[in-house]
Amino acid sequence: MKGFRFELLTQDSGSQARRGRMTTRRGVVETPVFMPVGTQGTVKAILPEDLKAEGAQIILANTYHLFLRPGHERIQRLGGLHSFMHWTGPILTDSGGFQVFSLGKLCKISEDGVRFQSHLDGSRQVLTPEVSIAVQEALGADIIMVFDECIPYPSSREYVADSTALSQRWALRSKNARSRRDGAALFGIVQGGMYPDLRRQSAEALVEIGFDGYALGGLSVGEEAERMYEMMDIALPLLPQQCPRYVMGVGTPENLIEGIARGVDMFDCVMPTRNARNGTLFTSFGKISIKQARYADDNGPVDPACGCYVCRNYSRAYLRHLYQSNEILASMLNTRHNLHYYLDLMRQARLAIEQGRFGAFRADFHRRRHDDGSQD
Amino acid sequence: MKGFRFELLTQDSGSQARRGRMTTRRGVVETPVFMPVGTQGTVKAILPEDLKAEGAQIILANTYHLFLRPGHERIQRLGGLHSFMHWTGPILTDSGGFQVFSLGKLCKISEDGVRFQSHLDGSRQVLTPEVSIAVQEALGADIIMVFDECIPYPSSREYVADSTALSQRWALRSKNARSRRDGAALFGIVQGGMYPDLRRQSAEALVEIGFDGYALGGLSVGEEAERMYEMMDIALPLLPQQCPRYVMGVGTPENLIEGIARGVDMFDCVMPTRNARNGTLFTSFGKISIKQARYADDNGPVDPACGCYVCRNYSRAYLRHLYQSNEILASMLNTRHNLHYYLDLMRQARLAIEQGRFGAFRADFHRRRHDDGSQD
Ligand SMILES: [Zn+2]
Ligand SMILES: [Zn+2]
Repeated sequence: MKGFRFELLTQDSGSQARRGRMTTRRGVVETPVFMPVGTQGTVKAILPEDLKAEGAQIILANTYHLFLRPGHERIQRLGGLHSFMHWTGPILTDSGGFQVFSLGKLCKISEDGVRFQSHLDGSRQVLTPEVSIAVQEALGADIIMVFDECIPYPSSREYVADSTALSQRWALRSKNARSRRDGAALFGIVQGGMYPDLRRQSAEALVEIGFDGYALGGLSVGEEAERMYEMMDIALPLLPQQCPRYVMGVGTPENLIEGIARGVDMFDCVMPTRNARNGTLFTSFGKISIKQARYADDNGPVDPACGCYVCRNYSRAYLRHLYQSNEILASMLNTRHNLHYYLDLMRQARLAIEQGRFGAFRADFHRRRHDDGSQD
Repeated sequence: MKGFRFELLTQDSGSQARRGRMTTRRGVVETPVFMPVGTQGTVKAILPEDLKAEGAQIILANTYHLFLRPGHERIQRLGGLHSFMHWTGPILTDSGGFQVFSLGKLCKISEDGVRFQSHLDGSRQVLTPEVSIAVQEALGADIIMVFDECIPYPSSREYVADSTALSQRWALRSKNARSRRDGAALFGIVQGGMYPDLRRQSAEALVEIGFDGYALGGLSVGEEAERMYEMMDIALPLLPQQCPRYVMGVGTPENLIEGIARGVDMFDCVMPTRNARNGTLFTSFGKISIKQARYADDNGPVDPACGCYVCRNYSRAYLRHLYQSNEILASMLNTRHNLHYYLDLMRQARLAIEQGRFGAFRADFHRRRHDDGSQD
């Protein structure tokens, strides 16, 4: 598709890790990449300029939320989501499916799509593959996701098989619903729950339809990490090498490194931003909870190994004070550090792959977290 | 006092407005000046760098809050308030008196000081002039305020007379309690309620004691603006020309311009920051409430006359969306615009005095607010 392409730059020799470059109509994205989540038209508690300064290349926006408020047609009238939220880089929108099932009320699924009630005002709404694509196009997304059903976990094999088949039909309808040749990419989503054969079948069916990129959906829904990695190991080799692979809603720093080792190019997760607002900070030696009394007199930075704006200028004692005092600045500073951590981890991973030392990088990453007394 | 001085640069010919320069041990402050309020060791919802970029020269910190949490001794151990909160410019601390009376529970006033219960945990606390000064010194304030009683409004003449006399004795004790010759300034506070003769008497008594600067306390407590201006007109001429004059807790943009016209050099108020978090934005044509539905499709900036970061990059429609969605970015952007408005208004006033056109500036300021359809 014009305006979107993906190049594989380096393939790690000791794992499936790959260093790539995605060119979107709004700029280049070096992969593997982590995409901060901007649910309601803002990555919470950080200015777009600071987000960019911390290394964000592309962000995710939620179709469900923007569809309900302020409305995709309004955003389109106002000049599109990029202009609305003052973010000039690429934006990937999800299809709305995940939130319909997790936030919407009284969902009713049919062949056509999903009827649900808004979690904001109870209004009756409908999302279908065609509506989802129209909304994402109206928002001006650079990467659009097919509409799919989010499968609860655990689910019976029969339920997963039926749902995965439905999502495949919706994926085709999503592709056919694309009304523009505007350079935006369309990604398919592999489902199949935790059933290896259904994952395989879903991956093959999507490749048969043909998309610009492929995502794995329905992971990080409560299963063991090993199960998640197993599903990656099954599905990823079936996807075209020359297309980007995206694991949706994943995950912890460990999940990211292990996902990269299995050939994943793209990740998104609310974890760094949501945890920040709850006072949980990521460090090179694991997570810490800044609200703990042990930090009240701690004049050191969150992470001595971190060179971010927060670690250069503020102490753990101050961050604890802000958190205890319910200050907005607590969320602002914690968010900035956590996003720096995630984005810098990906930068380091890219460099390690480029330099042919990803295996050592991966081993070192895990070792630090065991050596240095993480609280987890 | 070594390390603190005030120079009068220009005196307006048509009013009492003055252009001055205050030199503190942490840098120069051009007056008239507005001091953003950083209650709990942060000016809410803005980074120190951005605060400085918007033109803040000096900030106010609240002794009462920091005394209770995280504690002035802890802040001192951690290197002082400036280092703690990453603000390198001057800091003025209030004495704690105002918050004791407005937030503390079961206040008991005696000649010695005030016994009260913390609004945080109900713990029993005591503030006296000596304690207040010790706390302010421990925080590392560059301008320290005497400890005074905050007089309720309205109050009987007898109550005000007694309270004002007590505050005068406390002012002397505050001065005597200063333990260091460290270059921090000490300001007296004129009380006297809304009684002209008591205001006069208080001003004269304080000048007799002798301070580096003088504040008017007990204003903007519910009285009519005209009454506030009357009290300024009475007290300010009694204060030494060569000392800075500060009206505490004031006020609206109109109050600032009218205060400047009466010879005030310094102001502080939570209004720009608190209103920002409530969705009320200051503009050259008056206040607007960004939550209103009329802004839902308004692609224009908050104030076409404003050149701030927010007005350059975001629409009213976006700010309304953020506010409706309870996004932290709403508070961040609204705070930035409102502080820019206040700080830029003071910058313009300084320039107008320098250029001998303050009268025209003042008239123009009032005219715009009547012409352009403010919602107030
Ligand atoms: Zn950091
Ligand atoms: Zn502005």
